[in-house]
Amino acid sequence: MFSLTCPQKGLPVTGRHLLTDISLPALVVHQTALEHNLHWMQRLADRHGAVLAPHGKTTMAPGLFRRQIAAGAWGITLATAVQSAVAAKEGIERILMANQLIGRANMQIVADMLRQYRVDFYCLVDSVENVRQLGQFFAAQQLTLQVLLELGVANGRCGCRSDEQIDALIAAVQAEPALELCGVEGYEGVINGEQPQVDGFIERLVTVALGLKNTGAFNRAQPLITASGSAWYDRVAAAFSQQQARDAFLTVMRPGCYLVHDHGIYQQAQQGVLARQPRLEEALLPAMEIFACVQSVPEPGRVIVALGKRDIAHDDMPVPLRVWHGHATQPVALDNRWRAIKLMDQHLFLQGPAEHALQPGDIIAFGASHPCLTFDKWRYFCLVNEQLEVAEGLETCF
Amino acid sequence: MFSLTCPQKGLPVTGRHLLTDISLPALVVHQTALEHNLHWMQRLADRHGAVLAPHGKTTMAPGLFRRQIAAGAWGITLATAVQSAVAAKEGIERILMANQLIGRANMQIVADMLRQYRVDFYCLVDSVENVRQLGQFFAAQQLTLQVLLELGVANGRCGCRSDEQIDALIAAVQAEPALELCGVEGYEGVINGEQPQVDGFIERLVTVALGLKNTGAFNRAQPLITASGSAWYDRVAAAFSQQQARDAFLTVMRPGCYLVHDHGIYQQAQQGVLARQPRLEEALLPAMEIFACVQSVPEPGRVIVALGKRDIAHDDMPVPLRVWHGHATQPVALDNRWRAIKLMDQHLFLQGPAEHALQPGDIIAFGASHPCLTFDKWRYFCLVNEQLEVAEGLETCF
Repeated sequence: MFSLTCPQKGLPVTGRHLLTDISLPALVVHQTALEHNLHWMQRLADRHGAVLAPHGKTTMAPGLFRRQIAAGAWGITLATAVQSAVAAKEGIERILMANQLIGRANMQIVADMLRQYRVDFYCLVDSVENVRQLGQFFAAQQLTLQVLLELGVANGRCGCRSDEQIDALIAAVQAEPALELCGVEGYEGVINGEQPQVDGFIERLVTVALGLKNTGAFNRAQPLITASGSAWYDRVAAAFSQQQARDAFLTVMRPGCYLVHDHGIYQQAQQGVLARQPRLEEALLPAMEIFACVQSVPEPGRVIVALGKRDIAHDDMPVPLRVWHGHATQPVALDNRWRAIKLMDQHLFLQGPAEHALQPGDIIAFGASHPCLTFDKWRYFCLVNEQLEVAEGLETCF
Repeated sequence: MFSLTCPQKGLPVTGRHLLTDISLPALVVHQTALEHNLHWMQRLADRHGAVLAPHGKTTMAPGLFRRQIAAGAWGITLATAVQSAVAAKEGIERILMANQLIGRANMQIVADMLRQYRVDFYCLVDSVENVRQLGQFFAAQQLTLQVLLELGVANGRCGCRSDEQIDALIAAVQAEPALELCGVEGYEGVINGEQPQVDGFIERLVTVALGLKNTGAFNRAQPLITASGSAWYDRVAAAFSQQQARDAFLTVMRPGCYLVHDHGIYQQAQQGVLARQPRLEEALLPAMEIFACVQSVPEPGRVIVALGKRDIAHDDMPVPLRVWHGHATQPVALDNRWRAIKLMDQHLFLQGPAEHALQPGDIIAFGASHPCLTFDKWRYFCLVNEQLEVAEGLETCF
């Protein structure tokens, strides 16, 4: 029905130089830092006896999913039916959809995917009504759907809150022959609290899962238990590495943002991880930057950059890192006298010292917070080497 | 280099029904309201003797650009070199890039576009340095670039602030044989003020333009004068319809958001327009909505919807409008007891009365604020008729 007929912003061309040949703004991923992060998190999961199903929604880049699988990931986590279908089509064989599957058209997407790719697919359930809808739909399709019970927290997002809700849900799943209960899931990232609350939630998750296992609620000998975003993965890994969890379950971690990291909320979160785990050998590295041009220097100390909310996450302001003046091949660091003070759809306002050397055409590298809401602004991005040459152009599938 | 190999969220299929056949969330444009808005703004420009170059960055949908041209628009306004190249490729013959053209790769995109499509193209200049770079680049390409002087305001965005800046810029343009000065531009949308400040800025724009015309600075008998976003277009139209402006210039208005309007900042802005212009026959209509499914009802009064920052503008909270329960074909209005209280990447938290009838799978229509940051979340959207059947599937080119 559609063909890709449009020119694209930031379209990368392998071998070209970022500073001279690529239309800016452009989303850039540094190859060395990416490789570091990729293996750092896989080693952390390995050490704790957990498997890794990195959350793919962060980048939605099949080219990165394949690198994660090649580095040892057990599968890829995704957030929606469409995202799951993208991953299956791109060759991912095990998919954890860490969300409820809702709506007839989305169920059809999953059914078609299961038939076409025979992917090992899981999704979450937390309500009797949704279980009834799924059971009816997949029975009519003569397919089996593997589901995980989602455990939530009061004032949180999805997930069963009470034991009564859990009991009713289990009974509902057991009444649907097309559904198989394969484990439990939780997401500690929605907890509005500190380490004791996070630890308490993971402990409850393990307790609930063990209880369900003891009553024979799961349809397999080694059901899944899964949690962890990109802020508390060390606590989840520690809880999952306890003997009773490791013996009873396949423990699945699913951080996403670690792969490209950031210069904002996940940099702060990582400082929390390192404070809690001083033995971790080194930190994640920020691999993601956005390169953009100075557009106008209309007033002393005010610099307008051709970069906007269309190009970068804007819950927090972008962080100006370094500038290449004119035809310079080496950058100059932008110190903390430079601040992004306003972001419009296509423009950023940078405030700095009244006297400065910035001129239209100069190129600035920005850090962003956070990755999920930066990647989704781009259909393509540049993987670059240390010389800022494009090593590979990658596609996103949002 | 790339092929469109990925499934797509919200992919519309002509003739299918939005409530049963389309993967939600989906971006929806109501055909009747769109047609109303399309002609409403064209009539307003016509009445004031202005031509319309609607800002295309709002939707970046060539299928809508073509409707705007067919309804009488003089051209399409765009924000970047890539956006301009998209429009040229899609058959738009006159493009006003309401921005500076910055960076060698972006200049190359425009040069290639001028050669391939012979489009009547304009961009802005506000600095001697950029003028020098453009002059050198386009001379080397043996091409002529049509430029408009941008006039800015103190503490605003781009644009010359002082008469000295203007004089220096004009001299710089005149020193570059590859550049042709074709008019002046301003954007009143960056003024942090009320009607007197806006009126004062447009008056200054006209005065500066007349002064430049009197000194023979323009290379044509009827240079362009252009301004207007989507909040103050009535004041710009009024100023441009004064005899001295109409006699001396082609007056160009370039609102963008009017076409699909919204349920937030532009609805408020429109109330300002109607208060100032009580004779305007009727208001713009909100044509853009986002349809999404209830995902979970985990606690009394808390409803989680499968809709997130990846799908809808989030500077302001989405507005829940109506719900279709179960298989109902008629919606029920959601009154102001329902409020969106939190938005995550893929989830919305809706707060409502403790007792309610919402269930997973129910479909809710949301209004957004504003259009530019909603459309850019989608590669496709559904144009629907009053029965919510997809009349046409349209592609965006962000």
